[in-house]
Amino acid sequence: MKKFEEKTIKTEKIFEGKVITLQVDDVLLPNGKTSKRELIKHPGAVGIIPITNDNKIVLVEQFRKPLEKSIIEIPAGKLEPGEKPEVTAVRELEEETGYTTDSLEYITSFYTSPGFADELMYLYLAKDIKKMAQPVDGDDDEFVERMELTLEEAKRYVSNQRIHDAKTNYAILYLEMMGLK
Amino acid sequence: MKKFEEKTIKTEKIFEGKVITLQVDDVLLPNGKTSKRELIKHPGAVGIIPITNDNKIVLVEQFRKPLEKSIIEIPAGKLEPGEKPEVTAVRELEEETGYTTDSLEYITSFYTSPGFADELMYLYLAKDIKKMAQPVDGDDDEFVERMELTLEEAKRYVSNQRIHDAKTNYAILYLEMMGLK
Repeated sequence: MKKFEEKTIKTEKIFEGKVITLQVDDVLLPNGKTSKRELIKHPGAVGIIPITNDNKIVLVEQFRKPLEKSIIEIPAGKLEPGEKPEVTAVRELEEETGYTTDSLEYITSFYTSPGFADELMYLYLAKDIKKMAQPVDGDDDEFVERMELTLEEAKRYVSNQRIHDAKTNYAILYLEMMGLK
Repeated sequence: MKKFEEKTIKTEKIFEGKVITLQVDDVLLPNGKTSKRELIKHPGAVGIIPITNDNKIVLVEQFRKPLEKSIIEIPAGKLEPGEKPEVTAVRELEEETGYTTDSLEYITSFYTSPGFADELMYLYLAKDIKKMAQPVDGDDDEFVERMELTLEEAKRYVSNQRIHDAKTNYAILYLEMMGLK
């Protein structure tokens, strides 16, 4: 028995989209009462921290419709069905930045919003990145602009909230911790 | 004009729940094509990093229905309508841990999943925490168990994924960075 487990009495699928699925579950609580839980199912995602040979962080700026504004993030993307996260990581790095790598290092993983969603984010460090001779096309509904920042510049962008994103804030703290100069 | 702005052609509200709202927007892309965006609206949330006077981190274990398991997190909770995040932070600290504080320090904020949701998470450090004489009741559908861990113990829980949550992983990296002993 899992601690404080909530037993599912009924599941209702409300919406199944391109990216997310919404369901509402009726649950039996540990105290015998019932409640409703609103759940988003998500395929999972990767984030990549690419570091150039002169110690700059490669980031991408893109418009995020849920926020109605552009923010700056580490390259990232959703897992395709059955795709291993390290494969997604190299694919998204190539599509979003025009760099590739043979040196991908797993850092950690975390749920991004466990209160309402099951999205699991895998985070990788990409060193020894190389510009691709032939850039690859990404999704045709995704528009990103690459930028390369020193750690100090990235920390300023955290302060003024042009960087304002859990995985990217984590990445910058991680690089600071690792002593990136 | 915001960079790579996606203009809304149509908004359809699919679901309005207790916690989240789901809408699907038809958007006009920078290249003149159209696409659909699935968006979750969320009231925003806080996370609190409470540190005891003997340098332990106060965490809570709870069952997360989207994950169908229990994980260990820093105390956290949703903003009530119109509530200032620092007020939410003290309320959630009291409800979930039985501690209170006069020393709440803002650390940072970040969107948890900007690809599909607008949830903004405010993160606070709570020092000089004190056990409350009279514990306060929390939400009646929320069951949490408090635990107090050293930083080393918390890092082990990250390794074995009993801690597996963006805000909590960030918190532990932050405490490591700050040199918590």
